[in-house]
Order: sequence, then structure tokens, then C-alpha cells
Amino acid sequence: MNSIQSQLFFLNRAPLKSEWGENIILIYDSFLDSTPYRQFIQKFPIRYKVTGGEQLKSIDALPGHLRKLSQLSSPLQSRDLTFVVLGGGSVGDFGAFVASIFKRGVRLVMIPSTWLAAIDSSHGGKTALNINGTKNQIGSFYPASEVYLFRDLLLDQPPRRVQEAFGEVVKMGLIAGGPLWKKISCLKNFDSKKLWLMLPQLIAEKYKIVKKDPFEKKGIRHVLNLGHSMGHVFEAALGQAHGIAVLNGLILSLWLSHRHGLLSTKDYQQILRSEAGLLFPANSEISKMLKKCQDIRYWLAQDKKMSTQGELRFVFLKKPGRPVVQKIKLEILLNDLGFFIQEFGKGQK
Amino acid sequence: MNSIQSQLFFLNRAPLKSEWGENIILIYDSFLDSTPYRQFIQKFPIRYKVTGGEQLKSIDALPGHLRKLSQLSSPLQSRDLTFVVLGGGSVGDFGAFVASIFKRGVRLVMIPSTWLAAIDSSHGGKTALNINGTKNQIGSFYPASEVYLFRDLLLDQPPRRVQEAFGEVVKMGLIAGGPLWKKISCLKNFDSKKLWLMLPQLIAEKYKIVKKDPFEKKGIRHVLNLGHSMGHVFEAALGQAHGIAVLNGLILSLWLSHRHGLLSTKDYQQILRSEAGLLFPANSEISKMLKKCQDIRYWLAQDKKMSTQGELRFVFLKKPGRPVVQKIKLEILLNDLGFFIQEFGKGQK
Repeated sequence: MNSIQSQLFFLNRAPLKSEWGENIILIYDSFLDSTPYRQFIQKFPIRYKVTGGEQLKSIDALPGHLRKLSQLSSPLQSRDLTFVVLGGGSVGDFGAFVASIFKRGVRLVMIPSTWLAAIDSSHGGKTALNINGTKNQIGSFYPASEVYLFRDLLLDQPPRRVQEAFGEVVKMGLIAGGPLWKKISCLKNFDSKKLWLMLPQLIAEKYKIVKKDPFEKKGIRHVLNLGHSMGHVFEAALGQAHGIAVLNGLILSLWLSHRHGLLSTKDYQQILRSEAGLLFPANSEISKMLKKCQDIRYWLAQDKKMSTQGELRFVFLKKPGRPVVQKIKLEILLNDLGFFIQEFGKGQK
Repeated sequence: MNSIQSQLFFLNRAPLKSEWGENIILIYDSFLDSTPYRQFIQKFPIRYKVTGGEQLKSIDALPGHLRKLSQLSSPLQSRDLTFVVLGGGSVGDFGAFVASIFKRGVRLVMIPSTWLAAIDSSHGGKTALNINGTKNQIGSFYPASEVYLFRDLLLDQPPRRVQEAFGEVVKMGLIAGGPLWKKISCLKNFDSKKLWLMLPQLIAEKYKIVKKDPFEKKGIRHVLNLGHSMGHVFEAALGQAHGIAVLNGLILSLWLSHRHGLLSTKDYQQILRSEAGLLFPANSEISKMLKKCQDIRYWLAQDKKMSTQGELRFVFLKKPGRPVVQKIKLEILLNDLGFFIQEFGKGQK
């Protein structure tokens, strides 16, 4: 296997295809064909176009993809095959997974095209597919040998992609604490140029944690799931974009951490009243979303972190820089959420 | 990832289920239900029955298998899940592959039920699925944490399973040379009791090689494919059982090694005239098989060891204990095979 730390390249210009050798298949998101990056894409003689989104990650589509990739690869020398994966989170999860199982693993180069992928999902080697809509039930640990962070490509993304990244940025800040949280908590507004400048630090903080527990065996890496247990519920039940769902999940995690006496009232208020905190949706909004969610119990029970005893390994926050994993009974969590809806849903229909 | 060296247990009695913890799914070959091992199988509350054979390894069937395994696993604690895989080579290849990608990898325990699986395929971490009948195009490196070699189960296999193992046994002897080859070359007949006694040594020789090159990056591990390039052709084109195909491939590899001046006439004759060699099919038989193979060129070109320059990385033998990997042009190899057919097919229709 590759080292868990991918080689990182921060570039202003498009990377040169020749940097990756001869035996390349480019896997890329079809939407990029109608952008200025079409020219870059056309430089690759062998291309596999996919449509980003959770549907790409369905296991049902996997055999068809593998058959086509096998056909595309047949003129190439399989021993030194490289998959270059260009796209957002779902394209990365899919492309890295197929790279990990194709001919028992080919070289993997990733070029994230969304901020979420650039900050988070391209790093740390987690690949993923879904079973019947339940996220990430199938996957592997397969770090890219290289990740290219390409400034213009990221800056050209629409503003909603920046918004979608906000949840993971705040999450990383709260987990890391210290100077990174200080910087993030003071963000008066949140735009792509600021994000580009913070990118190396955000990525470095993720690798710090990942390196201590590359295969998620020690529970250390699990703190990166702060906001994700409830985030996955919002994604599954309401179809929210991952980053938006994580921010909403994060707000609930902070509230739960405070409710369970782990996060002091002072720290909780400081987070909510920081410049970043002022950008959070209001609890009344989150309450409305929770009301709309069907089957919260079902989606939480699908979580890979669920135990047989009806307990969930939940990530709480003690203070910025001190995330903590604790078991919580599913019944207690559901009861807490009921209280949240009641408390912040007053006056709502 | 697990260590490439699985923990090995050589047992006379059936292993105890309790040795593997609580959260177990047993994946097993259906034919064992009509054997005395049914009782052992019934001890596992959660079982997934499959039908051994290459069809099990088809990628097209994978989504259905994963969905069913996901349903079976839902009452279990996914964090400490164990797949116990009981069956022959195809069940092992399949079961280890799904273990490697299920929730990004669960604990894997293997109980090979055929000699081929006990000697070879359960060791070294190679998992595999097929695309459109082309073998092992998809897979991972995922060594079992434990492999149980269970004497009675193996000794109860029908004699043809012993015959099928002969090719891999001779292969291992020729690769290892020294005392192991000496022992194997003197085999007057070949039965399961002898095989059981040789088993620890055969496995140890495989691990010696695998440990030097766990992910097949250095070319060292590739020598284990002695006899396999042509063996895979016999499997694909004629539907021969793997072990039988490997023995036939081995005979051609020896002939090719001699023809290309790598194996001396003296050593070649010594191998053929050893007790083991006397059990080989005659060259005239191999010639008949080759004649029947359609599309030898196609199947060889599918080989993962094929380069873009129309060359194959072929394993030759210089002498017992000295396998060597050399490139050979596909055209030259096909020409050699044509000569073989002509030379040994005289008088055949």
C-alpha cells in the first residue's frame, strides 16, 4: 500500500499530463467538459467520463464501470497503470475505490475539483461505495500517491461549493483548536480566496490525526467524524449536500456536547458567538429539518459506529482542540433530539 | 492491513467457533452441507451459503452478494466483524475479497476445504474476482489474520482434489529446490496423507517468497506464477480445473525453459524422469490440448503480466530452486507453441 500521506502539490497552473507517465486512464466528472478545463481533459487519450453524485457510488453500477474500465485499459501496460481521478467527493470516493481493486491496485493520482474534496475527502485514503443508499458500507483504505491542489480549478467553482465546504472547515478548526480555530473563528465572511490560503493548514491538520491511526483501528481517527453521525442522517433522509449536512450535524453535536456537560456554557457560547458561529443556521432551522427527517432511528442504526448494545460511538467536543469519542445509547440520543425539536421548534407549525 | 504472514493452525479436530468471537458471518460452500461438516457449519448462527466455482467470482454477481451480506450483518457490531470463509479456492478468493471491502475491511479467518486452497490460495493475501471470464482482473491484497488447516476436512476430500493439487505441489518444489524438491521428486505416488505431512513445508516455502515482495512490486513474488501463464489459457479456453491446468502449464514452462537454453538438457531430463515427473501427462497429451485451445493469443494478451510492447513476463526455470522471470515476445511464444504442437502432435488427427 502507499504511504497514508499522499504527496501534495499546490499549483496555480494545470498540471502536466506527462508528469504521470504513459499508462493513464483519466476518470473525470462530465460537468467539467463544459468548463475551460475541457482542454486539459482532452490531453488524456484514454478517458472515462462519469456523473458525480451519490448514484455513482451505488454498488449496483460497479460491475458496469469495471467492465468498461477493463476495456479501456486493455491497450495499456497493466503493470504500471495509473488512474487520474478528477472531480469532487463522490468521483473521488468512486475513482479511488476502483483504483484500489483494479488489478489488485493501480497507482492513484487525485485532482479534487471541489473544495470539500480538496480539504477533506481526497486525503487519508478512505474510499467508499453505498449499499441501497446507506453510505460508505463498502470501501478500502487506499491513499492516493499524489494529490494535486489546483488553484484556478478550485477558484472557478460556483459559490455554493464554497458554502458546502464551510461545515468541514469549521469541523477541522474545532478538532484542531489552537491557531487554526483562532483563524477560522474570526472569519468575517467566507470566500474561496481565504479558503485557498487556509488549504495547506486544513489538510495538514487532517494528516496529523490520520497518521496516528491510518486504518481507524485505535479510535483516534474517529474524531474526524465530528458532526457526521447526524450529518449522515440529514444527507440520507433529506438529501442535503454533504458539507451542508455536516454543518447542521455539527451544530447538533455542539448542542449535545453542552447538554451532556462536556462542553462548558462559556465555550459553547464563545463558539456560537464567534464570527464563524454567526454564520451557522439557527437552532430553529435545524429543528425544522429534524422534524422533516423520517426514520432517524433507522439511519442512525445503519451507522458503521453502531454497536450491538444499541449504542453509538458519538464524537463530542469538550472544547476547541479537544474532541472526545463517547458511547451514547441510541434511545438517549433520540430523546435528546426530541427535546431539541420541542425547545427550538416553538411557534413552528 | 494485517501482516502478510497469517497465523497458521494445523488441527486434527474442527476448530471451535468461540475462538473467533461473537460477531461472525460464516461464508461457506454449499456442498459442505451434505458432508459431516454440516454440524460444524450449523454452530454459526449467521451463515452465507455460496456455490463454489468461477461463477462465484464474477463481478456481475458482486452487488447481490454485498447486499445480502449487508443484511446479514445488520444485527452485528460492525466494528469487530469477522468473516470466516470455509471452502476451496474460488470461495476463498471471493470471501477474502468481500472481507477486504466490507466496511473498509473486516477480520478474515480462512478454513480451506480443498488441498489447493490449503497449499496455495489461502496464503499470501491475494483476493480475486473475474471480469467477463478473464481471471483475477479485480482484487486486493488482504491476508487472513488466521488460516486453519484442518486435517480431517482435507483428508475427506475426494481423490480428484488431491490430483488437482499435484501441479501446485510440483511447482512449489521446483521453485524452492533443495530438500523440498528432493522430497517431491521422489514421490512414488501421491496421496492425501503424504500431502498433509508436507503441508507445513509447502506453505512455509510460499511465505518465504511472499514476505520478500508482499504486494508483488519487486518481481520476486512473480516467480510463484511458474506454469500459470499457460495454465490460465487452459483454464479459460478448455475449462480445466486450476490445479490440472497449472500442471499442464508447468510442463510447457519446463519445455520452453529448455528450448530457450535456460534449463540444461540434463536438469530437464532429471525432472521428467523423477518419480514426480513420471506422473506428468505426456507431451503428446499437452499437444492435443493446445490444438483444442481457441484464441491462445487472446487469452495470453489478457494476462496481467502483459506489456504494451507485446511482451509477456514469463517465468522460466533455470534449475530446481532457480526460477527466473524474463520477457518473451508474444509472437515468439506463439511460434514456440506451434512448434510444440507439430513436434509432439505427430500421428494425431
